[in-house]
Amino acid sequence: MDALTVSLFLPVSAGLSAAKLLQESGLSPVVLEARDRVGGRTFTVRNKETKWVDLGGAYVGPTQNRILRLAAEYGIKTYKVNEKENLVHYTNGKSYPFKGSFPPMWNPIIMLDFNNLFRTMDEMGEEIPKEAPWRAPHAEEWDKMSMQQLVDKICWTSTVRRFATLFVNVNVTSEPHEVSALWFLWYVKQCGGTMRIFSTDNGGQERKFVGGSSQISECMAQELGERVKLQSPVYRIDQSGDMVVVETLDKQTYMARYVIVATPPGLNLKMHFTPELPPLRNQLIHRVPMGSVIKCMVYYRENFWRKKGFCGTMVIEEEGAPIGLTLDDTKPDGTVPAIMGAGVPAAAGRRSYKLFSCFRLKRICDIYSRVLGSEEALHPVHYEEKNWCEEEYSGGCYTAYFPPGILTQYGRVLREPVGRLYFAGTETATEWSGYMEGAVQAGERAAREIMCAMGKIHQSQVWQDEPESQEVIARPFHTSFFERRSPSVGGLLRFIGFSTVLSAAAAAGLVAYRKGLIPRS
Amino acid sequence: MDALTVSLFLPVSAGLSAAKLLQESGLSPVVLEARDRVGGRTFTVRNKETKWVDLGGAYVGPTQNRILRLAAEYGIKTYKVNEKENLVHYTNGKSYPFKGSFPPMWNPIIMLDFNNLFRTMDEMGEEIPKEAPWRAPHAEEWDKMSMQQLVDKICWTSTVRRFATLFVNVNVTSEPHEVSALWFLWYVKQCGGTMRIFSTDNGGQERKFVGGSSQISECMAQELGERVKLQSPVYRIDQSGDMVVVETLDKQTYMARYVIVATPPGLNLKMHFTPELPPLRNQLIHRVPMGSVIKCMVYYRENFWRKKGFCGTMVIEEEGAPIGLTLDDTKPDGTVPAIMGAGVPAAAGRRSYKLFSCFRLKRICDIYSRVLGSEEALHPVHYEEKNWCEEEYSGGCYTAYFPPGILTQYGRVLREPVGRLYFAGTETATEWSGYMEGAVQAGERAAREIMCAMGKIHQSQVWQDEPESQEVIARPFHTSFFERRSPSVGGLLRFIGFSTVLSAAAAAGLVAYRKGLIPRS
Repeated sequence: MDALTVSLFLPVSAGLSAAKLLQESGLSPVVLEARDRVGGRTFTVRNKETKWVDLGGAYVGPTQNRILRLAAEYGIKTYKVNEKENLVHYTNGKSYPFKGSFPPMWNPIIMLDFNNLFRTMDEMGEEIPKEAPWRAPHAEEWDKMSMQQLVDKICWTSTVRRFATLFVNVNVTSEPHEVSALWFLWYVKQCGGTMRIFSTDNGGQERKFVGGSSQISECMAQELGERVKLQSPVYRIDQSGDMVVVETLDKQTYMARYVIVATPPGLNLKMHFTPELPPLRNQLIHRVPMGSVIKCMVYYRENFWRKKGFCGTMVIEEEGAPIGLTLDDTKPDGTVPAIMGAGVPAAAGRRSYKLFSCFRLKRICDIYSRVLGSEEALHPVHYEEKNWCEEEYSGGCYTAYFPPGILTQYGRVLREPVGRLYFAGTETATEWSGYMEGAVQAGERAAREIMCAMGKIHQSQVWQDEPESQEVIARPFHTSFFERRSPSVGGLLRFIGFSTVLSAAAAAGLVAYRKGLIPRS
Repeated sequence: MDALTVSLFLPVSAGLSAAKLLQESGLSPVVLEARDRVGGRTFTVRNKETKWVDLGGAYVGPTQNRILRLAAEYGIKTYKVNEKENLVHYTNGKSYPFKGSFPPMWNPIIMLDFNNLFRTMDEMGEEIPKEAPWRAPHAEEWDKMSMQQLVDKICWTSTVRRFATLFVNVNVTSEPHEVSALWFLWYVKQCGGTMRIFSTDNGGQERKFVGGSSQISECMAQELGERVKLQSPVYRIDQSGDMVVVETLDKQTYMARYVIVATPPGLNLKMHFTPELPPLRNQLIHRVPMGSVIKCMVYYRENFWRKKGFCGTMVIEEEGAPIGLTLDDTKPDGTVPAIMGAGVPAAAGRRSYKLFSCFRLKRICDIYSRVLGSEEALHPVHYEEKNWCEEEYSGGCYTAYFPPGILTQYGRVLREPVGRLYFAGTETATEWSGYMEGAVQAGERAAREIMCAMGKIHQSQVWQDEPESQEVIARPFHTSFFERRSPSVGGLLRFIGFSTVLSAAAAAGLVAYRKGLIPRS
């Protein structure tokens, strides 16, 4: 009875980082992993052709200090994703090279519209508490709206509306009409805003781990040793007795004083609970589906795009294109030239699902060839892909999304303990939720909730800030006076309208005066 | 190997009616029921105070011929829900007695707006194939919209918008901003339109079963005898071998040639599948949550409302009201006076969840007292309620809903077999999906799919029409010339605007002519 077992299920880094912290605190956790590998939604594959490749979560950047701390502890180095040469924005069938986070817009009306959209999203985000988005002053109103409705309200031009769709697709692997505006604004905000989430340099995609991101989970698992049980999907959790009883598909039974469930919320459904979950949680877990993404890595003999002055980042806007965003995935020493593409089936009309991977590869190379203006793109030497939609124990990737109406009604029970069950998983985080960083924050917080329940730490110690990484420093994003103060298109039109009326009135007055219609006193 | 076992899980009437048909066809099905009772989302309770009461699905009406056929087979009689006296519509704090399906609107603008909304919903429904709503000509466009957006587009007056909210709340126990417009229009259409779905007389709420609706499942279960296994939640389905292997929480293993999964789609997640489900189904089942409803039955010493000229039907529009729609639930012989109320927590601001049932009862009696203008409503003699949101093996009630974007992307795999797994459950029906009728249609169709797979019947026999019940005859709904042809408010305004311009032009012309400004040729 003195021995403590903490059982976990399906860890991303969340379950393992919880177990690591508990073990370091002198407790005896056990990790129950559904898959035959650790790492969850990170997935590093090693083979001759690629050396190593991250087919799941891979990127890391400034302000993601917890995952950087873990990596540093294990001596895992980061390297910068190549962005030396030009990025390229493909739209209306043409390629426009650019530098910076967002493609520039040259038409002045579009520029105003674009600037206004992103500024407005950030301003709305400022109203949303990252730990409790349902408490935002306009929470109900924004939650009833889909992101599509919000974009339609803010934007005047179809160019910017299309780009907004891509921005949603790429960040949360779902469609603007599927997600709540409140939830999406919260998501962007808790990543640090539109610039931080979308940027490579100084943003969420700045770096990758040398050797692959799964190494962090692998190192934690090695530390935990026998405590990690692979291929042990949990199907039952019974907390009606003195100890919590957990049963796995391989017919093992585990007893624990506390349990951390470290799955995406929707995968709580894989377990049968005694007693039943409370009504709000019972319904929440049916309401937060995972996004849809196929990660596609195309390998080439040569790094031909760099020679043409492109860094490998492509922002692709085309109806039905299999890929929306790419990044260079060449190794830091310049070997194994490759391009990483994130395919969002919703955006590609779900047809991508039905294609065999060789046909998908062909379509991907076709679009790369058009965007980069290069015949060489048609001749890959190797291909790796991972369709996260087919994984039973992920349900999709990167993260769960909230459809309209759900966050305000059910959000507050997302990480509310149920008896001796505690909830981790990146979805329960308040900083970089949806990312590896969020998984670590969630896992460590859940571990400390248990330590608090055991009287080992005080309530005030459960949530802890993280000191900044020594190696990866966040720089502020500077917005220009223009970006802060330029009007929206609507504002401009009102201004023009108003001044037109004024000048017309003045001109009319002048004419009247000249014609002697106004008495000269 | 010659013996056939068909394993089922969580039958509403769907699983049992499938098993019944299979047994009648000479096969040997087994029914695995998660709960300790049969009936699924029907739930008849018997006790001294109520004699019997349906705390789940209860109502039946014309065109629901399959469930009526089953009831007739077992000698279960129907009776008409009392609607002799006035219905009452409570809005803006006042009660308006009325007769007919919908409350009348007296303000002519509101009347036009109301008529136009319901006519438009029915006209849009006509474009939607009930067996494949994703093939409707405007499927994509309507699926990207929430029902709230559609209502906002169609309606001019806040009165009609509010009523539309109630119409969605009451029919699908969810909120207009949560559901896809395409899905809701399909749902109303496959029930026979706005009049059929909402009416008591000649509609979906015309009748109840004497003795309670669960009797039908109970009779089927009795026929199946030992073949029905209660308290047997399935947690694993493995179809990698010759036979499908099914494991239940009580540690039993079943082998079958085919399996019908007769749960709501979202509850497929309670099972671990080998091999994994295909990607579209794997994601579908995370995307179709169940509605939220608490069924509340209030019992009184006397049938006081009838004495005041009210039949017991109340259509209640009030912000935060715990109940939106009531019906008389007195027994057909006039004993056990009672009022049935459907509480939709979404509409009531989810606070109802947190109330203990005695407080909920108090709030319910308060509103009944105001609506009926009667002090007697404050003195119930008994109360029964069922919160379907807390049932692990329902996930909610009445039925699953489709948020925006899901039906067109995932709808086509809703009842697509996966290897030797077939799918029933009322959600997979094409007539009265969401009702007991839909469950029977789905169960029998799935049973015939298996018979077809075994070569016992032809493909063309899988889907079968049902002859009309002898006892419960459907009458057409007559729409008046006014209802068919009256303009929308927008149409009226355009017409007025146009004729105003015309008459102004004519008048101006006349003045000009009179003043000699137009040459008289």
